[in-house]
Amino acid sequence: MSTRINNLKNLFPKNSIDATLISSPHNILYLTNFSHFYHTEREAFLLITKKNQYILTDGRYTDAVKKHLKNFQLIEISPRNPFENTIKNIIEKEKILSLGIETNNITVAEHKKITPCVKNIKHFDLTELRIQKDKEEIAAIQQACIIGDKTFAFILKKIKPGITEKEVAFEMENFIRKNDAEISFRTVVAFGKNSAFPHHKTGRDRLKNNDAILLDFGVKYENYRSDMTRTIFFGKASLEKKRVYATVLNAQQKAIEYLKKNIGNKIFLSDADKIARGYIIAQKFPSFPHSLGHGIGLKDHEPPSINPKSKEILKTGMVFSIEPGIYLNNFMGVRIEDLIAIQNDTVIQLTHSPKNLIEL
Amino acid sequence: MSTRINNLKNLFPKNSIDATLISSPHNILYLTNFSHFYHTEREAFLLITKKNQYILTDGRYTDAVKKHLKNFQLIEISPRNPFENTIKNIIEKEKILSLGIETNNITVAEHKKITPCVKNIKHFDLTELRIQKDKEEIAAIQQACIIGDKTFAFILKKIKPGITEKEVAFEMENFIRKNDAEISFRTVVAFGKNSAFPHHKTGRDRLKNNDAILLDFGVKYENYRSDMTRTIFFGKASLEKKRVYATVLNAQQKAIEYLKKNIGNKIFLSDADKIARGYIIAQKFPSFPHSLGHGIGLKDHEPPSINPKSKEILKTGMVFSIEPGIYLNNFMGVRIEDLIAIQNDTVIQLTHSPKNLIEL
Repeated sequence: MSTRINNLKNLFPKNSIDATLISSPHNILYLTNFSHFYHTEREAFLLITKKNQYILTDGRYTDAVKKHLKNFQLIEISPRNPFENTIKNIIEKEKILSLGIETNNITVAEHKKITPCVKNIKHFDLTELRIQKDKEEIAAIQQACIIGDKTFAFILKKIKPGITEKEVAFEMENFIRKNDAEISFRTVVAFGKNSAFPHHKTGRDRLKNNDAILLDFGVKYENYRSDMTRTIFFGKASLEKKRVYATVLNAQQKAIEYLKKNIGNKIFLSDADKIARGYIIAQKFPSFPHSLGHGIGLKDHEPPSINPKSKEILKTGMVFSIEPGIYLNNFMGVRIEDLIAIQNDTVIQLTHSPKNLIEL
Repeated sequence: MSTRINNLKNLFPKNSIDATLISSPHNILYLTNFSHFYHTEREAFLLITKKNQYILTDGRYTDAVKKHLKNFQLIEISPRNPFENTIKNIIEKEKILSLGIETNNITVAEHKKITPCVKNIKHFDLTELRIQKDKEEIAAIQQACIIGDKTFAFILKKIKPGITEKEVAFEMENFIRKNDAEISFRTVVAFGKNSAFPHHKTGRDRLKNNDAILLDFGVKYENYRSDMTRTIFFGKASLEKKRVYATVLNAQQKAIEYLKKNIGNKIFLSDADKIARGYIIAQKFPSFPHSLGHGIGLKDHEPPSINPKSKEILKTGMVFSIEPGIYLNNFMGVRIEDLIAIQNDTVIQLTHSPKNLIEL
């Protein structure tokens, strides 16, 4: 963890800041490896200055922080000692002129409290560090993907006529948890026409003959996440459905091939999106209403985003999804999603579940 | 839902706003009953003006929104048509001068995009509406609590020597999901000394004789949540542990009795906290490092907060926890938490699991 904090401090000069306030739970997790905080509440801040690092949290976490985070100075905040008091004191004491904050996380109300504490406030976040994963991070994501692959193999044996979407999700999530992992995000199970909603909410519909089955699910393993989508068929897939499936699969393979072929050269991520999307459109299907892919790691969705307007260039250490889809309202949808890691000028596929057209 | 939107619009004059931008996922859920959006991402906004209501979301949700939200005008946002464009257009078209935003949810980066769109920006949120639950909301919370009570009864039969905290949490969560409900928040299972951490992270420790067992867990049922804590003993509780337990239980009962006795009069919520906390301190135990209680509903934690500095007065429709605790580092902790609803000048206890000292 101290390497990460040093890397962070090394970014101060080029961002013209003397210190940074880290507020987003995933960035706190990245810098501390302390996973006790709930991610839906503001339960802690880190204040990292050139010389020191402080953790601000409330009394519920005091003893746990003391036990696990010995390289941070703990400051207990409470209604009587709000976080802005601490910030003000440290900023005065350490003569901080310019503070970096996560402007995509700090709320307007919090900003109003920070403003009087310091002369300059600038945007600063950890994207630059987190977007390039190290070996251990990629290994953890890989482990999550292995459990995801096992889950897919497992669920194929459980699918039977009349089962509901919720029951399928339950079986999958249970399997994941029995494998000593957690659910990364709400499992999407979409039968038949429901598969045409890119983010269908798993419901009580029952499986019928000739339904498509879209499964989009993630595993969290030691705080790192996987994400995978497969679309299979219950009974026979019609020729039309087969053509949809083959088009999505080809689009995905073309994007991945493009990365493999050009690795080592400068690759714009937007080009990968354009290749997959362009292919689908050329086959007379509608463009998909989402990015081709997204980064993943401590969060389900994190940089880079792979869309037609992405500015990023492919870099070693990036881990992201490639997930084209075709969604035909009132008929069916197909999405195929795999995770890719870039390591030492190699494109490594992290998910390995079969992608041949499966008819159960 | 249209009642809620009308109630919201009725708040415009007193807040001197012509329209409001609703951004927090729980407020969107409250106003739409549409539960498809992920709560960890910014996937939608509502823009409610005097005459109209708009939902801004991306193409992944277009078809689902069209199907379920017929009383909203859908505007599809994308990298090419960012949300601020839409806001600007509507504000111009409807001649909106003053826009209410959730300053405790909108980020600094988003605020920067909204600022050029409108003359005045003010804080506005739904606390005033959501803090007073209607009959249906209380009934949903009550149903979640019933499943919570069943979960507690179930887990008592499963606890055995050598079981890990994680295994207990797994059994509980599985039971909840088999009862057609979801987990509301990460289940806390703390054995022995771990119970002294108010928000212990459930781990791999194994149950030993004479351990205290703290169970803090919640159920989500039709989007509404329960929350309950019980502390029990595996084997015999020493006299000292019994005294800790009795003190917490008395503190809780005193706070609840205070509400029951004074209902109908003006009750400051802070007084309930002071009664429970004061009693614990008078028994020579340390004050607990958290509020006596918190509101609950669509979120695990929502207003009102019941702490020594709370300004709120007890109102009908409030639903909140009463959860004093004693935490003795390196020894043990006890917390007892129940949910209370206020309806027609009556204090209704929603959780009914036994609170006599249980020695398994």
